[in-house]
Order: sequence, then C-alpha cells, then structure tokens
Amino acid sequence: MDAMIRKELDTVAALEGKLHNRDFLLTWDHSDAAIRSIVVVASVLRSLARAGLSARVFDTGLGVAIFRDNSTRTRYAFRAGCNLLGLATEELEESTSQIAHGETVRETAAMISFLTEVVGIRDDIFLGEGHRFMTEVAASLEESAQQSVNAHRPVVLNLQSDLDHPTQSLADLCHLASVFGGIEALRGKTLAMSWAYSPSYGKPLSVPQGVIALMARYGMRVVLAHPEGYDLVDETLDVARRSAAASGGSFAVVDSMAAAFEGADVVYPKSWAPVAIMRERTRLLRAGETAGLKQLEREALANNARFKDWECNEALMRRTRGGQALYMHCLPADVSQVSCKEGEVSRAVFERARLDTYRQASYKPFIVAALVLCTRFADPALVLRRLAERAVPRSQVTLPAREA
Amino acid sequence: MDAMIRKELDTVAALEGKLHNRDFLLTWDHSDAAIRSIVVVASVLRSLARAGLSARVFDTGLGVAIFRDNSTRTRYAFRAGCNLLGLATEELEESTSQIAHGETVRETAAMISFLTEVVGIRDDIFLGEGHRFMTEVAASLEESAQQSVNAHRPVVLNLQSDLDHPTQSLADLCHLASVFGGIEALRGKTLAMSWAYSPSYGKPLSVPQGVIALMARYGMRVVLAHPEGYDLVDETLDVARRSAAASGGSFAVVDSMAAAFEGADVVYPKSWAPVAIMRERTRLLRAGETAGLKQLEREALANNARFKDWECNEALMRRTRGGQALYMHCLPADVSQVSCKEGEVSRAVFERARLDTYRQASYKPFIVAALVLCTRFADPALVLRRLAERAVPRSQVTLPAREA
Amino acid sequence: MDAMIRKELDTVAALEGKLHNRDFLLTWDHSDAAIRSIVVVASVLRSLARAGLSARVFDTGLGVAIFRDNSTRTRYAFRAGCNLLGLATEELEESTSQIAHGETVRETAAMISFLTEVVGIRDDIFLGEGHRFMTEVAASLEESAQQSVNAHRPVVLNLQSDLDHPTQSLADLCHLASVFGGIEALRGKTLAMSWAYSPSYGKPLSVPQGVIALMARYGMRVVLAHPEGYDLVDETLDVARRSAAASGGSFAVVDSMAAAFEGADVVYPKSWAPVAIMRERTRLLRAGETAGLKQLEREALANNARFKDWECNEALMRRTRGGQALYMHCLPADVSQVSCKEGEVSRAVFERARLDTYRQASYKPFIVAALVLCTRFADPALVLRRLAERAVPRSQVTLPAREA
Repeated sequence: MDAMIRKELDTVAALEGKLHNRDFLLTWDHSDAAIRSIVVVASVLRSLARAGLSARVFDTGLGVAIFRDNSTRTRYAFRAGCNLLGLATEELEESTSQIAHGETVRETAAMISFLTEVVGIRDDIFLGEGHRFMTEVAASLEESAQQSVNAHRPVVLNLQSDLDHPTQSLADLCHLASVFGGIEALRGKTLAMSWAYSPSYGKPLSVPQGVIALMARYGMRVVLAHPEGYDLVDETLDVARRSAAASGGSFAVVDSMAAAFEGADVVYPKSWAPVAIMRERTRLLRAGETAGLKQLEREALANNARFKDWECNEALMRRTRGGQALYMHCLPADVSQVSCKEGEVSRAVFERARLDTYRQASYKPFIVAALVLCTRFADPALVLRRLAERAVPRSQVTLPAREA
Repeated sequence: MDAMIRKELDTVAALEGKLHNRDFLLTWDHSDAAIRSIVVVASVLRSLARAGLSARVFDTGLGVAIFRDNSTRTRYAFRAGCNLLGLATEELEESTSQIAHGETVRETAAMISFLTEVVGIRDDIFLGEGHRFMTEVAASLEESAQQSVNAHRPVVLNLQSDLDHPTQSLADLCHLASVFGGIEALRGKTLAMSWAYSPSYGKPLSVPQGVIALMARYGMRVVLAHPEGYDLVDETLDVARRSAAASGGSFAVVDSMAAAFEGADVVYPKSWAPVAIMRERTRLLRAGETAGLKQLEREALANNARFKDWECNEALMRRTRGGQALYMHCLPADVSQVSCKEGEVSRAVFERARLDTYRQASYKPFIVAALVLCTRFADPALVLRRLAERAVPRSQVTLPAREA
Repeated sequence: MDAMIRKELDTVAALEGKLHNRDFLLTWDHSDAAIRSIVVVASVLRSLARAGLSARVFDTGLGVAIFRDNSTRTRYAFRAGCNLLGLATEELEESTSQIAHGETVRETAAMISFLTEVVGIRDDIFLGEGHRFMTEVAASLEESAQQSVNAHRPVVLNLQSDLDHPTQSLADLCHLASVFGGIEALRGKTLAMSWAYSPSYGKPLSVPQGVIALMARYGMRVVLAHPEGYDLVDETLDVARRSAAASGGSFAVVDSMAAAFEGADVVYPKSWAPVAIMRERTRLLRAGETAGLKQLEREALANNARFKDWECNEALMRRTRGGQALYMHCLPADVSQVSCKEGEVSRAVFERARLDTYRQASYKPFIVAALVLCTRFADPALVLRRLAERAVPRSQVTLPAREA
C-alpha cells in the first residue's frame, strides 16, 4: 500500500461514523469530528485516484441532482464525485420560475427516492427559500422511510443554498490545508473574506457565509469586509463569531478591502448581493411583481457601481503578508479587462493565481464523494482501508473471471 | 438466502421466458403467464433491493428513452429500473412539436439501436399516434436485426401510449396484490375507475384504459364511471369486457362517481380528456391549425367545468366498502385547495391516502426492471436465483481482487 | 476464443501505442499505423460485442461531451462507445449563441477535467473556429496536467470540427473495408465525393473534407465534384493531394456529379455550404450582425437552388461501375419526395441503399470506443487480448462472489 495513503488511513481509523444517514445542509450543524472526517476521506479518495486505484463502492445506485440555479462546476463535481463511487446520476428537471412548496415538493421527493442514495440540491437564488426547500425535501424522505414507503432513506446534500455552500467551503478547507501544511497549520493565519465589485447582480451570499462560518472553526483570524449594506445573513455571522471564540481564532467585520488585506495570509475577494435587495427580491418574486423586479435590478446595479474601487489589485495585494497572500476564488471570477471591463480582480493578480484557483476547485469532486461515503457508510474508514488494500486499478481489464 | 425471497423464487421457477425478445406495448398482447412473471420478477427485485443486494446483470449496455411528453415519475422509474440492472440510460432529444413518421422514425430507431438493450417510449399526447409510433420504431429495429445491420435487437417498452400505460397498470397491480394479499385475493373485489374533474386539459386516456384492461383479468368487478362524452377508446373497452368474461369478473360502465363507488374495495378517481376532443386535437395538429387548437382547448375546459361535482370527497368515500376503499392515483393528483381550487380529490381524502399513493408509485422502477429482465433474458427465474444465491451487497467494497 | 477474433488479434499484436495520451483532432495529424490501429481495434470491439462479450475496461470514469451544434447520431455514438468501455458520460451545457474563447474556455476545460478520461467536442458551425476551440481546450488540459492541477490529462476527441469529422470518416473507412474485403482492397477503387443539392443552408464542410483526406491515403482514386463556389478548405485539399501522391492513389476535382460518377466504385453525394459563405457567416456572427446573417442565408439558399440537378438519381447511378456503386451517406440524407421536395438523392436510389447507410453508421460507436481505448491505454492490443481471453458475457450474472 502506498505510504501516503497508509498514513492518511491511520488518521481515518480514529474517525467515527457521525455522518451516517444524516443530511448535510450546513457545516455548522455538524461536529468538528464530522467535518474532519470529510476532509480526510476526501484526501484519501484523491490519493487513490492519483494512484489510479478504483474507489467504486456501489455496484448500482443513483445520485439525483436538483438544480434550481445554473451550475457548471458544482454540477460536474456532483456527477464526477458520484461516478467515482459507482453511482449513476440523474437530474430532476424542474421549472425554476416558481418557488414550489408543499405537496409538490413532498411528492416529488418521494417519487425520486426509490433506489436513490443521495439527493443533491442547489437552491441559492431566493433568500429564505433554499435551505427551507432542502429541509422540506429531507422531511418528505424521512416520512417515506418512517412509513415504510421506502426501505431506504436517501440523504440530502446541499450543493448551495441561501445559507451555506458546503461543497465549496470544504473544498476550500482542503486547499488551505494543502497549501499551509494541514488543518492545524491554519491556526493564527488571517483570512480576508472580502466583497468585491462585479457588474452583475444577485450573486448568492452563501459562499462568503460558508467560508467565514467554516474557517473560524480552525483558529483562523477571519476578517470580513464589505461596503455598507452588503451584510451577510445574521445567523451566519453569529456562527462565525461563536466558532472563532470556541477555536481561539477571531472574527471581525471591517468596511474596506484594504483594511481586511492588511497582513492577510489568505484573501478571498468575491462579489455578492446586498442582503436587503435579496430579501426584497424574494418578496417581489412571491408577489409576481415583474416590473418591480426589473426596477430592483437597476437599483442594485447602480448601487454596486458606487464600489468599483473594491477590486483586488496589485496595490492591495502588497498589503498582505509579505505581499504573498494566497488568492482564492470559487470561480468564475469577474476579471477586469478579461471577462468584464471592471471586476472583482485585476488581470495581473488573477493570472498569477489562476492555476491555484484551479487547484482549489479540484477538491470539489472529492468532497462530494466524501460526503456520499460518510453519509452512506457506517464505517468509512474501513471502506477506505479495503479500497487501498485491494488496490484495483480504475482502468484495466479487471473483470471477474467467467464462472466455472 | 432470505426466506421470503426463496418462497418467491419457487414461484418464479415455474415461469417460462414468454417475453424473451418481445416488445411490451400493450398488456393485452401478452398472456396471463407473461403478466404474472413480470409481477413476480418485480417483487423479487424489490425484495433483493430491500435486502441490500445487487441485481446487476449487465456489465455495460444502454436503455434509451424517448419522451414525447413531459414526465417526471416515469422518466425517473425508467432510469432507476435500468440502473438497478446495470444499464446506463440515454435520452433521445426530439422536438415534440410535430408528429414524425416514416423515414425519420425508421432511421432514428436504427441509429440508436447499436449496443442498446431497451428503448422506452412515452408518446401519449395524440390519440391514434402513440401506439403507432411505437410499432414503427419496433418495425425498424426488427428490420435492422433481420438484415444484420445490428447483431442485436433492442426491445421496445411502452412508457405510456395513447392506448396503454403498462408500467403504471402493472405497478398498480403489484400494489393491489400487496394490499389485498396476492393477485388471487383480487377475485371478486370491486374497483371503481372513475373520471374526476380537473381544471386542466388534454390528460391522456391511457391510465384508465390500462387499468380497466388489466384488472379485469383477475376476476375483479371493474366499474368504469364517466360523464357523457368522456368515453375511452373502444378497443380498450372491448378488452376489458372480454377479460372480465374470461376471468369470471365483470365490467360495467356507469354515469356517476357515486354509482361506481357503491361498495367499492378500490377507487381510482382520475381526470382524462373526452375522446372526441382528443381525436379532433390530433386532426387539428396534423393540419397545423393553431387557432383551432386554442379554440378546442377553451371548449374542452368549459365542458370539463360542467362536471366539477366529480370530486372524490368524504361523502363519496363513505359509499365504499366499509367507507374504507383503497384510494389509488398515478400522481400527481389535482387536490382541491392544495394544487388547485377544485380538483379530482378533496384535501382530506387525499391526505389520508397520500402515503398509499407513494407506495403505489414505489413499484414502478421495479416493474421497469422486471420488463427489462423478462424481455432480455431467456430464463429470468435462473437469473434471479443466481442473484439471490450470490447475495452481493449493492453497496460495499465488492470489487474483484487484483489479478495474480 | 472465437477464430475471427483470434485472427484480428494477431494483427493487433503488431500495433504500437502511437495514440497513447494524444488528442485526436485531425486524421492527417496521425500516422498510417495509428489510423490502422483504430480501425482494427474498432473491428475487434465490434466482434466482441457481436459475440456478447463485455469490453468493460473502466471501473469508473467519465467521458465529457461538449456539443456546440445539434447532434443525434454522433451524440449517441459517443455515449454508446464510452458505455461499451465502462465510462459514464456527461454533457457540458453551454450557450451555443456565442463564440467563447480565452479565459472561459481555459477555465471550463480545467473544471471538467478532474476524473475525466476523454472530452469529446463537436464544434462545426463556424469556419475557422471549431478546430481552434478544440486546440484551446487541449492546451488548457495540458497546462493543468503540466502544473499538477490534475494528476491526469484527459484527451480531446474531435466529434466534428470545421476541418474534419474523424469519427465519421473512420466509420466510413470501416464500412468500405467491410464491403470491399479489407483496407488493402480499396487500392485503385474510385470514390466520388460529390456535392448534392439540399434545400437547407449552412451544412458543415467537414464530412467531405474528412472523407477525401482519409480515403486518399489508401490508394483510392478520389474524385471531388462540386459546383463553382463550393470549394472545400484549402488545407484539406492539400492533404488529399499529398496523401494520394504518397499512397499511389489519385485526387481530382471535377465540376459535375456525372463526371465524378463515371465508373465510380463508391459514391458519396452530400450537400455542404459554399466556403465563402461560411467565412462571411463567421465574420457576421463575430460582429453580431443579425440582419446581415438573415440576408446571407437568403442568398445562400438562392445560390443552392441553381444546382437542383445535383441529385443522385438512377440515371447518374447507371454511370457508375456496373451501375452498382456503393452509395454512402453520413445521414440524415435529404431524400427527394421523402424528407423534402427536391434533395440530395432520389427516393429509389436511397431506398435501395438505405440499409447500407445504416450499416455504415453502425461502425461509429465502435470507432469512438476504439479512439478511447487507443488514446487511454499504452497497449490496446494487450487489453483486447485479455478481454477476448476472459470472455465475460456482457449480460449475465457476472458479479463477483461474496467476500469470504
């Protein structure tokens, strides 16, 4: 067995199946041990893949995705992560033009649950809706299992809600651990999660929310920066504060990118919509006020335009620790003079960091696979150990011999 | 081996491969023994799944779906049923705006046949078209196989036509057998298949047609109820009559939901479109008369509205046997005050029966898998016996050992 | 082991892995030995499939398709070919309304590369763009692999560009070899690749380009016929000329279908757009000149209409060798009086050749699978030999025994 995999497996051996049969909607609903197990499992799965070994643990089975917003990267990560373990994926097509609730959700959830292992959901457009939708789906799946409609209860995985984006923040954590030499090494490091200007409208709040809530658990000094009005949802600020206090880290909110970048080890400049606008948007959508929605978009874009100087550029990067902070982004970034006239980051800063952002993204399929493995198996460590011991190549003629 | 599975397998042992390499378009084209084998195979596959055992019988292979009408439940059931056996699924995208025939159908069928095991088709919108389309596809596949274009002839499975909806009616039969204690126990039971009011237009006739045609074969007393003008296609009425006569059951048509429900053991209240409207719709579509189609829709909705009292409510349910008839629906139901103002069923009746309708639906993926197994294997009983004996867990590290 | 497979395997044994880890964008970028290996591997895979044997070589893994133009046949062939080897397929959804380049392409390519074996791309609409896009994707994948973003570099397969359509031309070559008794038997045979009238606009040039470029390598006498203005891209004409010279065949351009058909052993009458129109179309699209595009389409259709006599009919077929030339088409053909009033081929000629065109198409999934096998395995001959020796049925209960 490969030495690195063996070393990682020794860590996994200590893990307990705290995620078995549990939904994964918010990182802050799960213990430190549970989060740690996901990161380690993702890392072992990545090592197996790099060693060319199969991680197939399902002979058949389905992962169902419900995308209520566009997605390229997360959709791909869901499919690749499921495929890595042997699950086929299936997408539920649904009109995204309405906020469906109640009986329709309850019934649809039941209908797609037969023979399904996981239901991955992205629902990040409407503040106050995404997380609610996921809990409705989960409640229906639970009811079907309790009432023996289904022998088998699929788990729900959050592929981005209005509150959290755990496959992103957990991939980010893997990347940070890889860059700094382990999760323990993050203690005392400063992460600047900063709003940045973008010429587009209505970007979800869940990436910054997920990042501050998760990284504050590891003793990091998390600094959130945004212009007035671009606050995040209170619940997530509270989580970040409490997590920082518990971990010996810190959490602060400042009102300029420059202040946040001062001495930072990591910068994460990214645009999002003002929370008040997002709340009003949900109200207008529910009321079907199309004209109001257009007017709101115009106002929001005009408001954004007041903060065009929130661009991550060379001058700002020089304020970071040794001028060498790690630049992070969930992609796609709005790169000035590349994807737009003025955007979140200057061309020079982004180009230097570009391959790092690809590396950051590369953890996502393995996080999805780790979430599936940890929620579907009582003892993920044992599963990984067996996979490593068998060491079946992923691509070779590994078919069973013909029956005698 | 699990005792229940062993018992079921003893029944399967007596089955013959009457469906091997045959298309499955109409239940009434197949013998009682063939139908029985599908129900038993579906039941064993369900038991295997509940026992966590793999039913993978294909190492590779494709199930191709052609959906010429929207579908969520049947689409999912097709994919889940194929996946259960190890087939990947692929959907043929096609414009649904025209009634394609002739060379296009012939050629497309040939093009998607290479390496394909089954072709599942939904084509239920146009009366006189859906079944015809399926037979055209089947004829092309047959020609390709006969002429050695393809070594291998995929079978066609009806996922809902204008005449029949066998995956639905066979799932319904499984559910009835489960509720009443076996297919034999259905003898003498009364099933009321009743039209019900819905504020929507153009629902296919194939669910009621499929239900009356199939259930009359098992000695049930089948009562069909509908307002004047809402007749079903003659062929299916004839089948129901003949089947009832042969099985010692009965088939009657009445003109009120109340009459049908009287003493019923099972009620199936569901809306459908008037046959004359559906025929005229096909004619207008062929002629491309868009204005005529809109006018027809208005007329049809106005006509429907005359029968709003055809709602399955508590008062009507009290007329059934002991007031306790089994409520069935293929979903989604138009539930009054829930999914629409006035609909097929009152909120209270539906809510009480809701989980039962989910159970009813839960058989569909296994029916699809059973149809694939019975049409693709000469001896499905032997296949099931081997699956049960090997008892490979569906999700575990079951990879073959590395080559020596 | 089957005698035919054994014989084919003896040929394969001599092959070298010249395609291992290489993209496959243009047939003329690859050696004769490489092309030969694809044809032989496709043939063995077809024999295995006809013998009902599994060719699964991947335990898990993805084939990603990017279709920037409509596709039914090639899309299906890609999925079926990938499935044959055990790869799941995933389609990248992308707006086709713009010509994306630069950072978006670079990033998207990286994002879909994790755990992906092959990226199949169709981008055939814009002259000067499709091949360029494929090389951009390939460059990004190469960069990610070089910079250790990905451990693993997917290969890019051309599923039709503006220059070549190798899965089509290689399937055509298999068909020709099958009809004439081997690739060697093509020496000296005359192939007439002729323009034909179609009432549609903007058909890509890549099929005729791919056919003349490939077939000229095998000593065939390739005759290209088209009306004035319907030239092909210079690069491909040069390739055909050079290949013919090197192989002892010939390449000539004539200005009438009748001249091309004179004594031909094979005819391939097919419509395409004039190269100047296609170039102007790309320019107008880049400039966003919608009105200009409509005007261009009208002009192009009017121009086409001057050549309605370029129809492959009985009179023209009589000019071919013994009046019995093999008729080829990539499908769908515009058949006069069937799919259009006046088209590429008369009803009688097409109907006689129809099943042959299906046979021609039947090689495509195997060509895709062969491209995957040859680009992903260092020793495809060894892989095939093992598959043949093990002879695992594709559909049977071949699950591994339960762990002891």
